[in-house]
Amino acid sequence: MITIEQIQQHLIKQKADAYIITRNNMFLGQDILPEENKIFELTNFDGSAGNLIIFRDKVILFVDGRYDTQAREQTNSSQIEVICTKDSIGSWIYSNIKESCKFIYNSWCHSISEVDYWKRSLSHHEFIEDKFDTLGSRISSNTTDIFELDEQFSGISSEEKISYLTKFCLDNKLDAYLICECDSVSWLMNLRSNLLNNTPILRAFALVDTSGETSLFINNFSALNDELKKYNGKNIGIAYNRTPKAIQSIMKENHIWLHNINNPIVEWKAIKNQIEISGIKSAHIQDGIAVCQFLCWLEKNYLNSSELNIVTKLYDFRRQRQNFYSNSFDTIAGFGKNGAIIHYHPTEQTNLQLNQDSILLLDSGAQYFDGTTDVTRTIAIGKPSPEIISSYTEVLKAHIAAASSIFPLNTSGSSIDTISRATLWQYGKDYAHGTGHGVGHFLNVHEGPQSLSSKGSFPLKKDMIVSIEPGFYKEGEYGIRIENLVLITETNTKFMPTMLKFEPLTMVPFDRNLINKNMLTKHEIDYINKYHQQVLSNLENLVDKTTLKWLKKACKQI
Amino acid sequence: MITIEQIQQHLIKQKADAYIITRNNMFLGQDILPEENKIFELTNFDGSAGNLIIFRDKVILFVDGRYDTQAREQTNSSQIEVICTKDSIGSWIYSNIKESCKFIYNSWCHSISEVDYWKRSLSHHEFIEDKFDTLGSRISSNTTDIFELDEQFSGISSEEKISYLTKFCLDNKLDAYLICECDSVSWLMNLRSNLLNNTPILRAFALVDTSGETSLFINNFSALNDELKKYNGKNIGIAYNRTPKAIQSIMKENHIWLHNINNPIVEWKAIKNQIEISGIKSAHIQDGIAVCQFLCWLEKNYLNSSELNIVTKLYDFRRQRQNFYSNSFDTIAGFGKNGAIIHYHPTEQTNLQLNQDSILLLDSGAQYFDGTTDVTRTIAIGKPSPEIISSYTEVLKAHIAAASSIFPLNTSGSSIDTISRATLWQYGKDYAHGTGHGVGHFLNVHEGPQSLSSKGSFPLKKDMIVSIEPGFYKEGEYGIRIENLVLITETNTKFMPTMLKFEPLTMVPFDRNLINKNMLTKHEIDYINKYHQQVLSNLENLVDKTTLKWLKKACKQI
Repeated sequence: MITIEQIQQHLIKQKADAYIITRNNMFLGQDILPEENKIFELTNFDGSAGNLIIFRDKVILFVDGRYDTQAREQTNSSQIEVICTKDSIGSWIYSNIKESCKFIYNSWCHSISEVDYWKRSLSHHEFIEDKFDTLGSRISSNTTDIFELDEQFSGISSEEKISYLTKFCLDNKLDAYLICECDSVSWLMNLRSNLLNNTPILRAFALVDTSGETSLFINNFSALNDELKKYNGKNIGIAYNRTPKAIQSIMKENHIWLHNINNPIVEWKAIKNQIEISGIKSAHIQDGIAVCQFLCWLEKNYLNSSELNIVTKLYDFRRQRQNFYSNSFDTIAGFGKNGAIIHYHPTEQTNLQLNQDSILLLDSGAQYFDGTTDVTRTIAIGKPSPEIISSYTEVLKAHIAAASSIFPLNTSGSSIDTISRATLWQYGKDYAHGTGHGVGHFLNVHEGPQSLSSKGSFPLKKDMIVSIEPGFYKEGEYGIRIENLVLITETNTKFMPTMLKFEPLTMVPFDRNLINKNMLTKHEIDYINKYHQQVLSNLENLVDKTTLKWLKKACKQI
Repeated sequence: MITIEQIQQHLIKQKADAYIITRNNMFLGQDILPEENKIFELTNFDGSAGNLIIFRDKVILFVDGRYDTQAREQTNSSQIEVICTKDSIGSWIYSNIKESCKFIYNSWCHSISEVDYWKRSLSHHEFIEDKFDTLGSRISSNTTDIFELDEQFSGISSEEKISYLTKFCLDNKLDAYLICECDSVSWLMNLRSNLLNNTPILRAFALVDTSGETSLFINNFSALNDELKKYNGKNIGIAYNRTPKAIQSIMKENHIWLHNINNPIVEWKAIKNQIEISGIKSAHIQDGIAVCQFLCWLEKNYLNSSELNIVTKLYDFRRQRQNFYSNSFDTIAGFGKNGAIIHYHPTEQTNLQLNQDSILLLDSGAQYFDGTTDVTRTIAIGKPSPEIISSYTEVLKAHIAAASSIFPLNTSGSSIDTISRATLWQYGKDYAHGTGHGVGHFLNVHEGPQSLSSKGSFPLKKDMIVSIEPGFYKEGEYGIRIENLVLITETNTKFMPTMLKFEPLTMVPFDRNLINKNMLTKHEIDYINKYHQQVLSNLENLVDKTTLKWLKKACKQI
C-alpha cells in the first residue's frame, strides 16, 4: 500500500512538482487485476479508466463522461479534485499547466509514443522516468494456469505463426521483434491463461528472432533484460505506441538499434482463418441455444425476476453449452430506467424487479474455446408503450442499415458507423457510443484494430469480425440496443468486381413484440424474415421442445 | 526561362543531390498564372497539380491519378520519368530514397509545416533553403485592377473584420497576426482583383497588429521584410501549414517570437453572414435563370450543338445576369464518353457533336458580386438507354440521401460523404471524387475548411455552404453527376434540441427524362417535387415566356 502523502514526500525529495499515475500496468490495457489498480489504491475510485496527477499541494483525478458521478462519490472530495474530460493527460497539461513543471512518471505504465508526445509538445516541462512506484512493471501476479489452445480451435500451429514473424523480421531487416501486446503473444503462441475473469489472454511479452527462436517473458522480467543484452548493436522492431517507455530505456542502455514498426500480428489476428471462422460460427450456435433457452424461460418467469436473477440464470444456461469457458464480460441487464445507463451492471443497490410494462436491455457474451460471443437484445416486458416500440423499430432500422450494407474493400469503420447512425439522425436521435468493435478469437471481446466508430480509421477486410450495436437511451426511462456480431465476407457486383458485406454470426431472434412493421421498408422486412429463418434453421434441431416452440413463434414471418 | 540543365549545374556547384520543385507560388495554392508555372516551364506538363525532383542524373515528375496519361504525353519521356502517386513528396522520399541525400528547395513555395515534416521524418537527409529559383517568391505579376467589394455585398465592413482579428491577437497574447492566405486577406479587406480568370481573389499578405493597424503586401515584399524588423522581440502568430518557410526564416532573423496558430479567418469566412446569405440566394436565382434559359434553348438546338458551342452559349446566357462578374471555373461539358472523364474540358481535339442518344454532363458556375455558383446537371440527349436512366436515378438517390439528411451540430463532412456514397455502394457503384466542397463568397469556388469527402474532418456548422455532387462514370460510355450548392441551416427535433440540415441554393430542375420513378421511395419523390416547386416559384416571375413554358414542364410533379 502506498499513500498520496508518501508520493508527495517523494516529490519533495526528488525536487519534482508532480507525479503522473495511470491505471495501466505494463501491458498498457484496461484489463488489470483489482490489486494492480493504483488509482483505486490511492483514491478509492474503481472505474475502468482514469488518470491521476499528484501535485505537492493537490491531487487531480481525470475521468471520462461515464465516470463523472461515480468518481466524485468514491473519492474523498476534499483532498481529490475530479476533472471530467475527454482529453489525454498530455493535452490537459498543455492547456492548463503554463509554468514549467517537473513531472515524474512510471515508465512501465506509459507507452513510448505517449512519453514522446509529452516531450515534444510540452517541451517547457520536464518528464522524469521513475520506478519509485514500488512495483516497477506493476503486475501483482502472473502465476496462474497457462494452457495451450488446441490447433483444432486455433487453426494454425504456433510454429507456423512464428514463421510469419520470422519472415517479417527478415523483410524489415530486423534481428528480432519484441511483442509487448499480450493478446498478440497469446495468439502467436496459441497459449491462454485463466488469470483474468472474462478474458483468457496470457499476460506476457515475446521476443522472436530471425531463426524463429522465441523467448516468452511471463514472470521473470529480469530475464528480458538479460536476453536483450545479447542484442547489443543489433536491430529490434517494436511498436512505440504499445511498448512501455521502460523497454526503450533498457534497449538504449544495451545499445540496441530500435525500429518503430507496427506489430503485424494485430492485423493477422484480426483476419480470422477458416478453422477459426467455422469455430466461431459453431460457438454462436451454442450461444444462440443458451440465449434462446433463457428468453423462453424469461417469457414465463419475468414477473418473479430481477436484474441480478437474470444475470445468474443466463449464465446457468450458457455454462452448459459445448466448449463453454467463461462469460466474455460482466453481463449488462438493465430494466426500465437502468437500461438508459450505457455501462450499467446491476448491483444489490440498483437491482430492479421486472414488475412493470417496459423493456429489458440485455448485453452479454461468452468465451468458448472455439470463439467469443457478444450479443445485445432488448426485450419487451409486459406491454411496452408505443413510444418504446417506435424507438425500438428505429434502432432496428439503424442496425439493418449497417448489417445489410455493401461497401468497397478497405472501407474504414467510420463509414459503417455513419450508415447506422444516420438512420437514427433522421428521427432526431443518436447514441453516445460507437456502432461496433472488433472481436478476438477466444481472446478479448473488444479487440481491434478495426472498429465501427467515428475514429474507426482501420480499413475493413474480409474475414474480420465486428459487432453492430446501435442504440437509443432515454435518461430516466429506458434504453435500447440491438447487437449482432457479423463476419465480413466478399460479394460480387456488376461494376466493382469485389465488394464487402456482413454475414450475421449471432443467432438470436429480434423481439417481434417491439417491431412496428408499418415503419419498415420492404428491404428491412425481408432482412428480418431472412435472418429469423436462418436462426431457426441453425437452432431447430439443437434445442429442447419447449424452446423450439418459443423459437418457432419468435422466428415467424413478420 | 530556366532549364533542367541549369538546375543540375547548380546542384553540382552547391554540392547538392536534388532540387525539389513545386507548382505553387508563395500563396501556396493551385491558382497561379500560367507564367508562374515552373513545372510547365521545365517539363511541358500543364496539369493543375504536380511536383518535380531534379536529381543530377534524372528528373522525376510526380502527378496524381487524374494526370497520369497527360503527363506522359506532354513531357519528353526519355529525360523525365513520370510517377503517378497519391503520396506527398515527403512520403515518396521516405519510401524511396534510402541513402542520405542533400535536397534544395525554394522556401517561398513550401509551407513551414511541410518543411518541418521533411526535417522530422527524413532526418537522415538534408534540406537546404534556396532562392536560386530565380524568382524567389515566384509571382510574375500582381499589377492589376484591385477593387473594393461594397458592404451591400460583403455585409461587414473591413474595419469590423479587422477588429475581430485585433481581439484575436489580444486573446492569444500576440502583438500581431500575419495572414498569408490570400482568400483570407481578400475577405478581411473586402478587396478583390481581376488578375486570375475565374477567381477574384487579391493576392496579398496582411499583417494586423493589436491596434488594428493593417499592412497589406501586394507587390513589394521587401516592405514586408522592413515591417517585420519592427517586431524584433515581439510575438507574431502565423499558421505554419499555410505560411511559406521563407517567412519563418525572415522572422527568425528578426528575432521575432513565432506562434503557430490557425488562421481564424478560415472559419469566420466559411460561416456566411446574413447579407452574404441573402446575396448568395439571389445570385443562385440569377444563375438559375441563365441555366434554365440555356436548357430550354438546348432542348431545341442540341442536334446542331457541340460541347464547345455549349460552353459559349451558356456563358452568353450567364453574362447577361444581374451582378455577373465571370465564370467561376472553366465549364465542363462532356457528351457521351467524354462525360466519363471526371476533369474533362472540351478542346478542339476532343469536341463532340451532340448527335446520338446519350447524356451530356454539364458542370459550370459563375462569380456574381453577391455570390459564387457551381451547378452540375446531367441532361438527356435524344433517347438515353434504360441503363443510363437507372444509373442516373441511382445517382439522384445518392444526391437526395445527403441533401435531405439531418445530422448533429459539428458532424464531420466525411459522414455526409458516406451517406451519399453508401447509397451507390448498394448498387455496386462508387465515384472517384469527394461528395462536395465548401464554397467562398465571390472568392474561390472550392473553399474550405469544410468538405464532404473521406478526409473531410472539419465540423459542419450553421451558415456554411457546401456542394453535394455524387456521380457515376462508366469509362468509354457516359458520365453522370448531379450537383447542387446547399446552405447548412438549423432544425429542431424532439430528442436532440438542435440539429443541422441542408437547404438547396441551386435553382435548376433535375432532368425528369432521366428519372425512373419506380426506383424511388416516397421520401425521394416528395423531395424532388418539393424542390421543383421551389425552383418554379423562385424563377417563374423572372424568366421569359419561352423559358417559363419549359420550366413549368420541367418542374411538373413526377
